[in-house]
Amino acid sequence: MSDDAGPGRHNAITDVGGVYVGHEDRIGDGWATGTTVVLAPDGAVGGVDCRGGAPGTRETDLLAPENLVQQVHGICLSGGSAYGLAAADGVMRWLAERSHGFPVGAQPHEVVPIVPGAVIFDLPLGEWGNRPDAGFGYRACEAAATGPVTQGCVGAGAGAKVGALKGGIGTASTRVAAAGTSFTVGALAVVNAHGEAVDYATGRPWSAEDELAGEFAVTWPDRTAEKPTGGGTSLNTTIGVVATDAALTKAECQRLAMSAQDGLARAVRPSHSMFDGDTVFGLATGAAELPQTEGPFAVPMRAAVLDELCAAAATAFARAVVHSVLSATAVCATPAYRDVWPGAIGEA
Amino acid sequence: MSDDAGPGRHNAITDVGGVYVGHEDRIGDGWATGTTVVLAPDGAVGGVDCRGGAPGTRETDLLAPENLVQQVHGICLSGGSAYGLAAADGVMRWLAERSHGFPVGAQPHEVVPIVPGAVIFDLPLGEWGNRPDAGFGYRACEAAATGPVTQGCVGAGAGAKVGALKGGIGTASTRVAAAGTSFTVGALAVVNAHGEAVDYATGRPWSAEDELAGEFAVTWPDRTAEKPTGGGTSLNTTIGVVATDAALTKAECQRLAMSAQDGLARAVRPSHSMFDGDTVFGLATGAAELPQTEGPFAVPMRAAVLDELCAAAATAFARAVVHSVLSATAVCATPAYRDVWPGAIGEA
Repeated sequence: MSDDAGPGRHNAITDVGGVYVGHEDRIGDGWATGTTVVLAPDGAVGGVDCRGGAPGTRETDLLAPENLVQQVHGICLSGGSAYGLAAADGVMRWLAERSHGFPVGAQPHEVVPIVPGAVIFDLPLGEWGNRPDAGFGYRACEAAATGPVTQGCVGAGAGAKVGALKGGIGTASTRVAAAGTSFTVGALAVVNAHGEAVDYATGRPWSAEDELAGEFAVTWPDRTAEKPTGGGTSLNTTIGVVATDAALTKAECQRLAMSAQDGLARAVRPSHSMFDGDTVFGLATGAAELPQTEGPFAVPMRAAVLDELCAAAATAFARAVVHSVLSATAVCATPAYRDVWPGAIGEA
Repeated sequence: MSDDAGPGRHNAITDVGGVYVGHEDRIGDGWATGTTVVLAPDGAVGGVDCRGGAPGTRETDLLAPENLVQQVHGICLSGGSAYGLAAADGVMRWLAERSHGFPVGAQPHEVVPIVPGAVIFDLPLGEWGNRPDAGFGYRACEAAATGPVTQGCVGAGAGAKVGALKGGIGTASTRVAAAGTSFTVGALAVVNAHGEAVDYATGRPWSAEDELAGEFAVTWPDRTAEKPTGGGTSLNTTIGVVATDAALTKAECQRLAMSAQDGLARAVRPSHSMFDGDTVFGLATGAAELPQTEGPFAVPMRAAVLDELCAAAATAFARAVVHSVLSATAVCATPAYRDVWPGAIGEA
């Protein structure tokens, strides 16, 4: 059904109109952590799927399809383990100062911004006590923008690891043409997984084959490397957001998030361990309506198109994981992909 | 099976050993809100049941029985709607300063305190912007103690309403003798419901009949009263904790919390509306083991005793709701039960 499956303009979650990304981080002087916000100040329908055994989350219950609140105004992704949940306080403050939120009074500023969030466990990379607070969330909002998204060891990915390698932030997007409409699906991942994203036997990321239009710009090394040691303890948890401009319900946003977890399952092995808090949020800004007609064999076209968006969400999330690995650079003695297979990146 | 079903020594959730309660609130000068903590610094197995349509919560995903973390170190209940989730930041800080938490490093102070939380919607009672922050959570911990628990318009109940009347904090406990062991079950409720807790036709709380040992100390008026007006907008959400000294699993703690929601259903009508975020946490400190033997008709004794604890949790939560109504006093033009039916309280 798709005849237009390339990446969006910036190959980033910000290719979905109305979605902004901002990072705030601190690296060095005993610090290696940060916060990334995915803002939808005018509201986006939200869902969530939590499949890790050790989640750290906030405001996920309200995302259940049967509950009242339909729209969220931002997602706060942060380092700092459960301490980092404080970053969302600053995101709420920034949004409230601009009257973005669920209205609860007669005045425009009387709003409660809806800011679900999740955290990664990056505490061992910095000194004890150095973790994001509300100020990180606020400043990440100040930095939020459309357009290209900085990847690698920034924002919530500053202290991230994936297996033995440095992890970080990755993003990707896909255009999906279906039922006569053009949709965009974007993903942003904070990759700090217990498992590995790369096959050490070949130097290929597990999801290398998901590449769209030469986006990775890598000549795969196709040679074995020793798994690095010395980067300290294994960390854990991959969190992220998938967004689309389609007009989805909360339940459909949950399904979009579920599909992104499939992308994670392909890109990180093992994923969803008892020590990972793997949580993905789904956002739908609603600019593009889904068809309500019936398709061949009495299949509802709405469900068929949703499935295309979900397949794109899975692949976009897996591609975002690959981008995070390729963009990462060594931090706090943890080597990056580019250190283990030097010369591969940028030679395509 | 029970032969000992009276209230515990203080008729409070603190009758469960190892459980501490602290309040922090601010009333007057445009303020009517606060925070209440239920601390188990040495850890208690935790569960949750969320049945309201508009929940505001934090760290509830980790309580799912299939997930890694087994024990929580405190529950943070707060006013301030979603803004009040910040209070848990201060609870974490207080616990971490004392090395209470999930160990994540070699040093005793390298811990992540597990502090799930939920909030009530009390914003209209105070001036805009006056809501609990991390300092409220920290100071509520400073005030935490065993022994009697102050009820009424304190802590997270400072700005609470139940239907047209002033709501607040209520607590109750029950001793349960089962299978040769004595257990204690306690409940603490922050009652801010969309529904009513009192039958205006008679002046009796819906759960008046759950009274244990004359605990309410009221001569029920048995006369009709007009439902008060002028207390402003209807507020919403009842949150709370049920705790026991039994050694329960996470799944069993969830069941304890589910039963407390049954108590809420009896005590507040309607409850669990689309505008309530009704959330109850279940805690088990583990001092008293459940039997593993088989009972009559091959019923596992463990399940049979759990059912007794759950029945006690339901009743204790309903009684806690009644205590909150009887203890409340007028705040910000919202009249209390004692104002509508004067003379009833204290004449028993």
